[in-house]
Amino acid sequence: MATAQIHDESEVLELDEPLPLDGGQSLSGVRIAYEAHGKLNAAKDNAILICHALTGDQYVVSNHPKTGKPGWWARMVGPGKPIDTNKFHVICANVIGSCMGSTGPASLAPDGEPWAMRFPVITIRDMVRGHVALLDSLGIEQLHAVVGGSMGGMQALSLAANFPERSRAFLVLASTARHSAQNIAFHEVGRQAIMADPEWQEGNYYHADEGRGPEKGLSVARMAAHITYLSEEGLTAKFGRRLQDREQKTFGFDADFQIESYLRYQGLSFTGRFDANSYLYITRAMDYFDLAEEHGGRLANAFCQSKARFCLVSFDSDWLYPTSDSRNVVKALNAAGLPVSFVELSAPFGHDSFLLEVPALDHVVEGFLNQ
Amino acid sequence: MATAQIHDESEVLELDEPLPLDGGQSLSGVRIAYEAHGKLNAAKDNAILICHALTGDQYVVSNHPKTGKPGWWARMVGPGKPIDTNKFHVICANVIGSCMGSTGPASLAPDGEPWAMRFPVITIRDMVRGHVALLDSLGIEQLHAVVGGSMGGMQALSLAANFPERSRAFLVLASTARHSAQNIAFHEVGRQAIMADPEWQEGNYYHADEGRGPEKGLSVARMAAHITYLSEEGLTAKFGRRLQDREQKTFGFDADFQIESYLRYQGLSFTGRFDANSYLYITRAMDYFDLAEEHGGRLANAFCQSKARFCLVSFDSDWLYPTSDSRNVVKALNAAGLPVSFVELSAPFGHDSFLLEVPALDHVVEGFLNQ
Repeated sequence: MATAQIHDESEVLELDEPLPLDGGQSLSGVRIAYEAHGKLNAAKDNAILICHALTGDQYVVSNHPKTGKPGWWARMVGPGKPIDTNKFHVICANVIGSCMGSTGPASLAPDGEPWAMRFPVITIRDMVRGHVALLDSLGIEQLHAVVGGSMGGMQALSLAANFPERSRAFLVLASTARHSAQNIAFHEVGRQAIMADPEWQEGNYYHADEGRGPEKGLSVARMAAHITYLSEEGLTAKFGRRLQDREQKTFGFDADFQIESYLRYQGLSFTGRFDANSYLYITRAMDYFDLAEEHGGRLANAFCQSKARFCLVSFDSDWLYPTSDSRNVVKALNAAGLPVSFVELSAPFGHDSFLLEVPALDHVVEGFLNQ
Repeated sequence: MATAQIHDESEVLELDEPLPLDGGQSLSGVRIAYEAHGKLNAAKDNAILICHALTGDQYVVSNHPKTGKPGWWARMVGPGKPIDTNKFHVICANVIGSCMGSTGPASLAPDGEPWAMRFPVITIRDMVRGHVALLDSLGIEQLHAVVGGSMGGMQALSLAANFPERSRAFLVLASTARHSAQNIAFHEVGRQAIMADPEWQEGNYYHADEGRGPEKGLSVARMAAHITYLSEEGLTAKFGRRLQDREQKTFGFDADFQIESYLRYQGLSFTGRFDANSYLYITRAMDYFDLAEEHGGRLANAFCQSKARFCLVSFDSDWLYPTSDSRNVVKALNAAGLPVSFVELSAPFGHDSFLLEVPALDHVVEGFLNQ
């Protein structure tokens, strides 16, 4: 993916003003780490903000500095790609609360010690406030579009609701306007897995000598979450009941089945690139997300200031944020009288479909952004 | 439920012969704990074997000795109930590998120390061998019926396949003939959660001073599994996004939402009645279960010796063992030329529907057993 790699290092902006938070506190000295690709035009009106998902980051195109893997959406973003950096100035910022350069629980608090669990609980809207502060400092008054999948879609919707002048278009993939009880339940399992790990130490694991921290708990959290990102059909097609590098079951507790081996790998590799406390904070922000609740209990009210156009995409195999979640948003946008297109795409990959090879999605994205 | 309580203590039978296991070993001195209700007739042909699920036990009617709660199927089994103990002699045995009196990892090995992880990995068929040995010792040659939900249904199917003469009828609820990749994945998360807990100590936690053991890991395992037992619709109806004993979100990590509080309670209370190593062994047995594989890869072959009649019941909100799993069994039984009835019942409780108040199920059970 060398052609897609434009530069290796993300920029970091430190905000001059304290960032107000939904919880009532405000954060001083907030840093926002971001990548930008493609040239910002003189009118500064060709910028697209890409919002990342729970465990994503600003490395949308560039190779990830920790894993060395291609950017998480390198297939979608770049010269001549559906989000075309020959035409658009593409910005992707690490959300606050995360751990790839933006201020989060692993960052130093004013007392010089890591925030850890003293970091304030943040919301999706707080993340969006960070994005808007970044746009302010970049001198971008109005975006061409905001694009996001999963938690990135929540940010897009929140931006549309709370900063309606800041973008002309919103593209929301595999997302929802509120977290369901089942969504919250899966996140709570992950949080409890982390907090049950004695290495978590109430969040104060940053001074540990040798890269420790609650790696086992975080790994279990990731494994549980990962199942929800895939479809049953996809798992059956990819793994079925096939055994891992063996002819016979071992009658033991090794990873006999490929799916076990795969899940263990997913859990383990995640701990090398993600901070456990960030996982707690970001899942909490997602669980708190209920856009209607923020706007008097009626979702359409969230969009009554907007003049933007919208596109929502769901995937038929996504059981985490099923098509009905997207339809609820579409109905609200219709009720608000806004132009919205909606498509449910067929793809076997479950929730992760928005990140994977789904050619129909490429056409939708390219088409919507170039209207 | 006092009327349903017939006696408090389960019987324990010690097998004279070693029990051969699918893994190639055999177990000596196996104990089978069971409850029996209703009178066995002189012909010994009115017995019904009820097979319990993963975390179930023999206390199908009697109050549970550890929790004090009514038996897990007290609503279904008893005088005048769908499984009528005025007519039938009802037996329910704790599966081997479990922890309520039957031999399992917490039992003492011949060296006088707990088996712990030295206990052999067992299969569903091994559990069934234990049941058949119990029937032998009770002098019951042929059962009126075998009834089981979830893992209990797997035992019923395995008994039908491997001991076709031992029952005239099989009633299989919310079950499957093989564990899918997704089923295995969820179990693997639970096992990893237990094994990640340092209190697990490679399974050697039985000598700990004060009722410890990997309680946190087991609790997380139970939480993850519990989500799969419920339907999204049921969770939404029961909990939605309602807050727990508070008016406002706390912007912290307490259980703000009712679903979080409920899940934490489910996890915690489970650790008081279940052995973590048993959880490892029994989930492993379920993951290994693939009845077709045991019979040359063709499920219909599993039933070619059978002359019994069958009834399969699925629930429309069960996403753990969905209706398609039951249909696969029905097709195989049809291919084997056996009489089978099948119904998908509508119930909002997900996989747990077979345990809960579903009047239509009562009618199916009563009707099938009294044909």
